[in-house]
Parts: sequence; C-alpha cells; structure tokens
Amino acid sequence: MRILIINPNSSLEMTEAIHKSACGFAKGDFEVVTLHIPESSPFVATYEDHARAASGMMKIIRDNNDDFDAFVIACHGDPNLDLMKEICDKPVVGIAEASMKMATMLGDRFSVISPVERNIPNKRVLIEKYHLEGYLASIRAPQKEDEGKNEEQRLMGAARKAIDEDMAEVIVLGCAGFAGLDKSMEKELGVPVLDGVVCALIVASGMVRYGVSTSKKRRYNPVF
Amino acid sequence: MRILIINPNSSLEMTEAIHKSACGFAKGDFEVVTLHIPESSPFVATYEDHARAASGMMKIIRDNNDDFDAFVIACHGDPNLDLMKEICDKPVVGIAEASMKMATMLGDRFSVISPVERNIPNKRVLIEKYHLEGYLASIRAPQKEDEGKNEEQRLMGAARKAIDEDMAEVIVLGCAGFAGLDKSMEKELGVPVLDGVVCALIVASGMVRYGVSTSKKRRYNPVF
Amino acid sequence: MRILIINPNSSLEMTEAIHKSACGFAKGDFEVVTLHIPESSPFVATYEDHARAASGMMKIIRDNNDDFDAFVIACHGDPNLDLMKEICDKPVVGIAEASMKMATMLGDRFSVISPVERNIPNKRVLIEKYHLEGYLASIRAPQKEDEGKNEEQRLMGAARKAIDEDMAEVIVLGCAGFAGLDKSMEKELGVPVLDGVVCALIVASGMVRYGVSTSKKRRYNPVF
Amino acid sequence: MRILIINPNSSLEMTEAIHKSACGFAKGDFEVVTLHIPESSPFVATYEDHARAASGMMKIIRDNNDDFDAFVIACHGDPNLDLMKEICDKPVVGIAEASMKMATMLGDRFSVISPVERNIPNKRVLIEKYHLEGYLASIRAPQKEDEGKNEEQRLMGAARKAIDEDMAEVIVLGCAGFAGLDKSMEKELGVPVLDGVVCALIVASGMVRYGVSTSKKRRYNPVF
Amino acid sequence: MRILIINPNSSLEMTEAIHKSACGFAKGDFEVVTLHIPESSPFVATYEDHARAASGMMKIIRDNNDDFDAFVIACHGDPNLDLMKEICDKPVVGIAEASMKMATMLGDRFSVISPVERNIPNKRVLIEKYHLEGYLASIRAPQKEDEGKNEEQRLMGAARKAIDEDMAEVIVLGCAGFAGLDKSMEKELGVPVLDGVVCALIVASGMVRYGVSTSKKRRYNPVF
Amino acid sequence: MRILIINPNSSLEMTEAIHKSACGFAKGDFEVVTLHIPESSPFVATYEDHARAASGMMKIIRDNNDDFDAFVIACHGDPNLDLMKEICDKPVVGIAEASMKMATMLGDRFSVISPVERNIPNKRVLIEKYHLEGYLASIRAPQKEDEGKNEEQRLMGAARKAIDEDMAEVIVLGCAGFAGLDKSMEKELGVPVLDGVVCALIVASGMVRYGVSTSKKRRYNPVF
Repeated sequence: MRILIINPNSSLEMTEAIHKSACGFAKGDFEVVTLHIPESSPFVATYEDHARAASGMMKIIRDNNDDFDAFVIACHGDPNLDLMKEICDKPVVGIAEASMKMATMLGDRFSVISPVERNIPNKRVLIEKYHLEGYLASIRAPQKEDEGKNEEQRLMGAARKAIDEDMAEVIVLGCAGFAGLDKSMEKELGVPVLDGVVCALIVASGMVRYGVSTSKKRRYNPVF
Repeated sequence: MRILIINPNSSLEMTEAIHKSACGFAKGDFEVVTLHIPESSPFVATYEDHARAASGMMKIIRDNNDDFDAFVIACHGDPNLDLMKEICDKPVVGIAEASMKMATMLGDRFSVISPVERNIPNKRVLIEKYHLEGYLASIRAPQKEDEGKNEEQRLMGAARKAIDEDMAEVIVLGCAGFAGLDKSMEKELGVPVLDGVVCALIVASGMVRYGVSTSKKRRYNPVF
Repeated sequence: MRILIINPNSSLEMTEAIHKSACGFAKGDFEVVTLHIPESSPFVATYEDHARAASGMMKIIRDNNDDFDAFVIACHGDPNLDLMKEICDKPVVGIAEASMKMATMLGDRFSVISPVERNIPNKRVLIEKYHLEGYLASIRAPQKEDEGKNEEQRLMGAARKAIDEDMAEVIVLGCAGFAGLDKSMEKELGVPVLDGVVCALIVASGMVRYGVSTSKKRRYNPVF
Repeated sequence: MRILIINPNSSLEMTEAIHKSACGFAKGDFEVVTLHIPESSPFVATYEDHARAASGMMKIIRDNNDDFDAFVIACHGDPNLDLMKEICDKPVVGIAEASMKMATMLGDRFSVISPVERNIPNKRVLIEKYHLEGYLASIRAPQKEDEGKNEEQRLMGAARKAIDEDMAEVIVLGCAGFAGLDKSMEKELGVPVLDGVVCALIVASGMVRYGVSTSKKRRYNPVF
Repeated sequence: MRILIINPNSSLEMTEAIHKSACGFAKGDFEVVTLHIPESSPFVATYEDHARAASGMMKIIRDNNDDFDAFVIACHGDPNLDLMKEICDKPVVGIAEASMKMATMLGDRFSVISPVERNIPNKRVLIEKYHLEGYLASIRAPQKEDEGKNEEQRLMGAARKAIDEDMAEVIVLGCAGFAGLDKSMEKELGVPVLDGVVCALIVASGMVRYGVSTSKKRRYNPVF
Repeated sequence: MRILIINPNSSLEMTEAIHKSACGFAKGDFEVVTLHIPESSPFVATYEDHARAASGMMKIIRDNNDDFDAFVIACHGDPNLDLMKEICDKPVVGIAEASMKMATMLGDRFSVISPVERNIPNKRVLIEKYHLEGYLASIRAPQKEDEGKNEEQRLMGAARKAIDEDMAEVIVLGCAGFAGLDKSMEKELGVPVLDGVVCALIVASGMVRYGVSTSKKRRYNPVF
C-alpha cells in the first residue's frame, strides 16, 4: 500500500516533520511519500492561502493518481478537501476531518488547539461544516501570557484550560506543524492528544484495505 | 456608486443576461459593470470549476478595487466568496447568500430551484454554511418528466411542487443564468420569486450607501 | 418611493432620533415619514408593551397602506412584526431582523448590545426565531461598573467585551434609541456597527425597487 | 384549588366543549371555570386573531388573579402565552405547550393534527419556539380527499398517515375545538391521543399543588 | 391511585428522603410506595451503576405491574428509563425528564445542579437526548471553594452562579438525594427550584388520571 | 495485535459470519477472536435485549482485558457501548458508531438499512446521540412488497430507494448479521456500502497502532 501525503504549504521543515510522524506510524507496513507545494505559502491559513495551493494540489493528485492508493491532505484547515475528493478516484482524507472525527470516539468532547487566535473562526466554520459542534468543547489558541515560552509549553497552557475550564476530554492538535508533540503532551495531560496526520493515515489506510473510496453519486462527481 | 458584477464563468451569453437584469434594477441610479472570467468553465458547478475561477476572480477584484464601491459574485454557488471577502476592503456580496437571506424576510420558508439534481447536495452544504436550514423548505431540480419543455416551464414544474408539496412560500432561482425569469414566474405562482443578482445588488448598494464593509477582525483578515 | 417608519413607543425624542438617522440614509432619494404610537409605552420592552402597541400599529398600517410603498418597525424587539406582515400587502421590515441578517453578511459572527440585562433572554428568543444562533457571538448589556458613564461609553464597554471575549466581528445596536451612535462607535471599534433603522431601510427600499412583498401563501395570509 | 380556563375566541360552543372536557378530568377534585372573549374572533388562528384577543385575555387574568390558583390558555396556538406568563404571578399554562411536551414523554415522536393546512407553518414556528423539532414527526391537516367526512373521520385520516408514513407514535390534537375526540381516536389508532386542555390541567394543577410558578427573574418580569 | 417509586440505588437513607418528599406532595390523595434495589450501588452515577441496577428495576416493575398505576424512576440520571418504558404497560416517568421538561414551562432557561463535576458530561448527554439544549442555561456542580460548607450551602453557591452568570431562571436539583431542599432554596434564590420526584409525580399521576400510557407503536414495543 | 470482537447476541451463525468478515479484513496482520453471549437473546434489538447482554459483555471485557489490545462491539445498536468504554482501559469501538462516522468521510450523506421498520426510531435515537443527523439521508427498512425475496434483494430494494429518493450517497448496513453482503451490493449500487465490523476494525486497529484509548477524564471514568 502506498499513501501520498500532500503538505499544502511550501515549508520543507514542516514537510519533514509530517513525514517523520507518518513513517513512525506506518512502521514500514505501508509506504508513505510526503510532498509539499513549492509555489504555495510557507504557512497555509487564509482563504487566499487555500486558493493558492489548489492548482499545485490538483497537479499532485493527477500526476500520482495511478501510483498511490490514497491521499492525505496534511493541513488542519483541510484546504481544498472537497475539490480533492471530487477529482480523485482514490480515498482522500483531510487531517482535520479525520482527527476530529476520531476524537469523538475517544471521549466526551474535544478541544482543538489553534496556532493563533485569528484563525479560531475559520476552524469553527470547518467544525460546523462537519456537523461536529455537538462534540466540540472549545477552540483555543495559546494566550499572550505564555508568549515567551516554547511551542509545546504554549500549547500545553491552552490545552490545560480546555480540559479544566471547557470540559474537554480529548485534545486535537490544530496544525500539521505540531506533529511529534502528541505523545509528550498526552503523557502530561492525561487525556488523548491527537495528531491529525496519524489519524488521517488510520482512516486512509483502512479505506484502502477495505476497498472503499469517495462516492461519486452526486456531490463529488467530477462530471456535472 | 459603481458596482462590479463578476460572473465566475466564461459564458458571454450568461454575462449579458446578468448585466441586463442588473441594469434593469439599477435604473441608472448607480453604475453596473459585468465581467466574466474567460479562462473559467462555461458553467460553474463542480468544486474544480470553483477552483479554476479563483485566480481570475482575485485578479478582477484587485485590478478594480479602487474604481468600484462594491462587488457582486454572480453564481448561485457563491464560489470563492469567503476568499473575495478576505482580499477586498469593499463590500462583496454573493447572489446565493443575498437571495436566500432576503427570502427569509419575505415568507415562511423558501425553496431553491437548482438547474440539475446532481448539484442539490452542493447547494444544501451552502445552505448549512449560512445556517439557513431552519428556513429551507426544499431544494428541487426540474424532473425528467418535464425534459421536453422549455427552461421556464421546467423551473415552474419544480417550483409548483416546492410550493404544494414542500410548503415553500418563497422561490429562489438557484442559478445566475435564470436571470429574467423571476417576474413571469412570480406572476404565475403567486409567491415571491427571487433573482440572486437583484438581491445582491440590493444588499451591496445598501452597504455602500451605509458605508459598511466586511469586518477584518479575524475571519476575513487578509493578514494571518 | 415613500417609506413609513413606525416607532412602536410613545417617545417623541426617540422618534426624532430615528427620523434623523433615516433621513441621513435616504438622502432625499426616497421619502421617509416617522410616526410614533401616542398610547403606547414610552419604552417598548416587555410582552405587555408589545401587546399595548399592537392596535396603534395596525391602525397606522391600515390608514397608510395606500400612501406608502413599505413599512419599517423601528423597535429592536420587532414587536408585532408577524402581525404587520400578515395584515399588510406592502413590504414590512423589522429593524432587528434586518440588522441581524445584514450583520451575517459582514463578518463571522455578531453581538447584539442590549439596553439592559433584563431583556437579554427576550432578545435571544427573537434570535432563535430567526434561526440566527449559528451567527451569534453574544448578547451583552452595559455592566454595572460602567454605570456612571454616558450611553455611548457604556455601549462601548459592552461592545469591546463582545469583540475581545466573545469573538464578535460585527456589532448590532439592540435598540432603536441608539440611532446615531453607529459611526462613532465603528470608528473606535474597528468593526462594522449596525443601526437597525438604516439596515431596515436598505431592505425595505430594495424590496420596493424590486417589486417584491410578503408571501401570502400560508403563514402571512390574512384570511384563515 | 381553582383553575380558570381562558378560551381566547368568542365561540360559546367551543367554550362548552372545552369546559366539559376539563370537568371530566377534574372530577370535582378541583374547580374549573371556563371563560371566552366575547370581542374576539370566533376562531383564533391568524396573528390578528391573537392580537385582538390580547386585551380581553389580560383583563380576565387581572380581574381573576386573586380568585384562582392557575390559568390555562385553551387555544392550540398558545396565543399571548408569554404575555400572560409575564403579567400573572400564578402559573399560566398553554395547551399547545403542555400537550406537546407531555407527548414527548409518551413515545418516540409526535404528530400534531392541524384543523387546516394554512396554519401548518404557524404551528411549526410554535414548535420551533419550544425547541421540540427533535420530537416532531409531522404536522398534518385533513386532506381534500376526506372533505365529505365528519370531523373525527377527517382527523383520523390525517392521524393514520402521521403514524404510518411519518412514524408518529403519539398524536396531539392541534385545536381546543377537538376536545372530546381523544379517547375514541386513541382506541382506534392504538397510540396515545392527547387533548391539550387535559394536558394543561395536569401541568397547571401539578404546579399549584407543588407551589411553583413562573420565574420572574428576567424574561417574564413585568417590570422592565 | 397507587404509584410505585423506584430508587435505583441501595441507600435506605435516600429512599426515605425520597419517600418523605413524595408523601408530602401526594398528601394522601394517592398512595405512594418507594422501593430501593438492595443489590445496586449505594449511589448510582456511572454507566456500570446503571447496568447493575437494571435487573432489579425490571423485577420490581414486573412484580408490581398489576398492583400499581404508574412508576417513577427516582434517580436524576434516568437510568434504564427507556427499558422501563419498553417493558411496562403503565406510565413510567423519570425524574430528570419530568423535572427538566417542567422547568421549561416555568421560565426562560434552567440550570441543573449536579452533585459532582465528574458527572456533568453524563448529564449533558441526557439533556441532549431529551432535545433540551435550547432550554439549558448550564450544568453546575458545587465548587472546591465551598467544600467545607453543608450540602445546601454548596448547592446554593452553584445555583447563584447559574442564575447570575449563566442567566438561569429556574433551578433543577440534579440528584434524587437533594429531596427536601427545594423550598428553602427557592425562598432564598427567588426563582423556582424543582425537585425531580415531585415533578415526576405530577406527570405520572396526571397520566394515570388521563388514562394514557407509553406508546407501543415502535420504539417502546417489547416485541421486536 | 489482538482484537476481541463481542457479538452481544447468542447466535452462533451470526458470530461465524462476523468472524469470517473480520478475518477477511485482518488478513492475518492482526489476530481476531469473536465471542458471543450464550445467555443473551438470539437477536439484540429491544432495550431489554441490551440490558440482558450487559453482564455477559462486562464479563468478557474484564476476563480478556489483559490479553487483547482492543474490543469491538458487533451489534449495530451499539448496545452498552458507553458502559464498555467506561469499564475498559483499552479502545472499545461500536460498529454503528464506526461505520456511520466512516460513512461521513466517503460521501455527502448516508442511509442506514435497518432489518425491520420497528427499529427505525431506535436507530434514529442512536444517530442523534452521535450528532450525525446532519449527515443522515434516511433510515430505511425492507418493505412489504419485497417480502418474498432473499435478504440481499430486500436490502437492495431499500438501498435503491435511499439513493434515488433520499439522496443517499453512502449505504451503511444496519445489522452485524448483514456481514458479507457489502461488496456485492456496492458493485450493483455504485456507491460505497459499509459493513460495521470492518469499519470498527479499521478504527480499533488504528487506535491500537497509535497508542490511544478512551479518555478517562470524566464521562468514562469508572470511579465516580
């Protein structure tokens, strides 16, 4: 089985972190290739970032359609995910969709940790699109008071408030760039902490193994 | 006041119909310019059609930002509307959003007439995004039994079923290409029939007159 | 075009403020007349205030039906709005409905600033009636700590908390009596601040221009 | 214990039917008085009917406040119920609210049988106000094909479709005028059939016995 | 009329408190018997507690089916309530369902006071099952700062915050063991405070008097 | 990796079908053991069936906790799933929850095919518990007109109506006993058809591989 992970931004550093995390999960049982979009933004967050990544993402899917069994979109905004599902016959899994839906099977309600406050509305809109409001405890970003600390400490501050004040029972890391922090945070917090890339690989590899893919009946039918 | 209408597809015929309908409403009180996207699909419906229209739409907005007071996106899928709101300082109004929200002020519940059944799920997803399910009677497309008839007759068949069977009290024409059919249908049906372009012009011209535009606080802030 | 604004309370001062704000928007392009209800409460807030205003409002509509093109109900509780839509053939627009629905097209989520805390549940019930919960950040009233300040300062205190703590991106002024404060607040807050009377005029004048009015199919049919 | 039932319309015949049904339930354990509103419509259905009944209903409550322990509003549109709760210190119960909430404790989902199709949207709006959509199977009115039959047969036709096609498990009679048909319909249909007046008496007499009444904290506080 | 109250736990002390509260309401007008489940947990809270109580509860219902007119399940988690409704022909009423639905008729929104924070999610899940989110102000448990105080003082602390900070207008006591605290709390708080056992008796005795019981059409049909 | 599948009924034939389907998916990459509950009903559908299966299910989990890495509950009503998540430290996955959530990632909306109409409300209640209404096209059972046909033909009749009339794009087989029919139905229908056992194995094996399990923070904490 071969799964292609598409990092929709142009950051090589983030691509490597994603790939490392993916390989750690795949353990050689299936092959993982991770590609980035050179002409994309270094960080994909705004609607324009999504739009700028679209053609590169389409090209990757179309160029690799025959050589891979499934595709993972490795940005926690699930940019252009509907588009990818539409143009591709193989399973396409977004890391936000997979991690948040996996979270609903692991505890009462989940919180998403967003890199910055500016993007909280965009994440909420995505959560509403997936009909997940009933499972949402909160979306939190690191706060100003934690500004001097390192990334993990800042995420921990937001996660602790989510658990204590918002009654979260599961934490979803809201950025592909947080790859690798899940297990150390989980150990300290005492609740499941989910990395989206791993969750998407669970879903994508499972779909391949089961032999199912996106329904082409209407919404994702490429032919109008 | 100058309003630029962007038809996200490449059809000159549809562009003209939209422009005619818009001018009929503006009556010279404000200026309307209507542009299409030559490199776009002749009909914008799939997610790929949306993606293909994005760069042309961005270019139009950026090239014309200083010369116009507001922008209207004239496709009933509201393609790339969030993106346009994000990159533009002036009001940007989608014809689906404006017509469906106007419909909620004119009767109990509305039905959208979709050009084809294939696109009904895509329209429902849009309606859910706008939190309008509570106002929705149904989304209907012309049925096979009406295939030989002309476009207005086929839309009338769907609209009548929406009113009689789904309890719709307002009809929303679900395609910019239906421009010009509203008043004759309204006369026959006895309930309001809304053309999206006109509704968007009401909202856009009102915003200009009032001096308000998209909030740039978080979700539509172009700077991450 | 002639639009009649009905102020459902008996306050002449508020009627003048509303009228001034309306004329500032109409700029002579359409005629605006503003009437109050002498036998009504000086401030309309409770359910009894609504009931006491009903017959006066009905009388105004019926007496003026032929002389005006549309009617605006200028109280942010939208008192008797369904009744007015039922008995009138011309468009009738409530300032709460119009301003809150306009707000949804201008940013991610809106907050309503209520004159007093006591009325927050009543406003929430109205928002639920309009299926707008998905767009609501919060309803806030000025707080005790701001009691000594002037009205605008007290509203500003509530609006700032709505933006910072509740993630509001648009502010809706929740009382017709706040007319005239929108633009100075908007300037300070950096997000759209909506006056209901202006928003209702946008919608009402647009409906007149478009030639549409309330559907009489079932819910607003005056004949049972 | 003394309970005053207010029939908001002017029909003596309906008042007697309501009173008979109420007395059959009270069985002399508590006293029931039933009053109508002479200046009201003979049948209360439209928003104007509601408005016209308001002052008479207020007068009855205020004139009888000291002599009764609770009040029941006996019209299945619950006209002016919020107003009555606001102006009265004693419990006030609407027959629609009581019967539909009682229905949710007796089976999976309920259907309301409406006297006529025209009023279905108005009933749906009331159901949404009570947050009961999750318990609603359908609202049905007798159909044209049953026009020649007597009232009970016509209601039975609608109820049977509700049970068979809409999966209703409980039937709520959607008009105070249907009083007395519940038990014969229940016998034939094999599912609970609820008369609103009886349900309201259960709730009202229970509140009196328990010594609780409407919260005056905010929403129903008569003082603004 | 004879009503059997089932206390699903094994605490004799709680059984007595429930029985005393029930008799105080019944005032001899109907007979009340209260039984506990000796082999159950002393306090029923976890899912395992629910499961362990099931067979004892079923046995009580089946052994007493012919001798009683209705059954009340006296634990505010409504353990096994669907099961009891399914196996019993007589009305079965849960104290959580009855008290929370009664609360919705007494004020704008209610808060539930939970014995401990750990159980708040379980209570929220129950509230969602009853489609009561639209009526919920909050679920609150006594806080650490009140630990030294007696039970009523600790509940009062939580209830005051619910009223002041969460805008609750009615308080629901979220544990059968709080029986007897309702009236003293109500007096101090100035809003209705509901004891579940009393509310369930109102509903159960009313159903008996009316002659209605659980619909056996589908969901609660004991035969598959 | 070792996964224990619990068939909550007493049917050996169904246990074998489930086991065969599971082994076909596991392909020897992980070990699967399938156990039934001898003292349970031959078919688990009613609330009493759920209750009767509980102690046997608890015993299996507790006896095998140390020897297995995850547990699957193989009945499409997800009986006692919350209880199992509470008492077990290892991942526990229900086939209804897993298959319906997997379905949401494979197409616009799904329909569940229920063995019989009587159980449709019970399935809807489960779907509401999982907050999946927004993804639900319909729940359908085979109809009387198909009674003479074999099981697959009867399911096909219901599935075809779900796709054509209810706009379903994915079919979820609503009974563990339908194991083995997925791929032949999928081939004929042209949309994904999901077997719950396979979907639960995808989720359960993925959780084991990732090293995550049920959050014990509050709702599923076995200690009150």
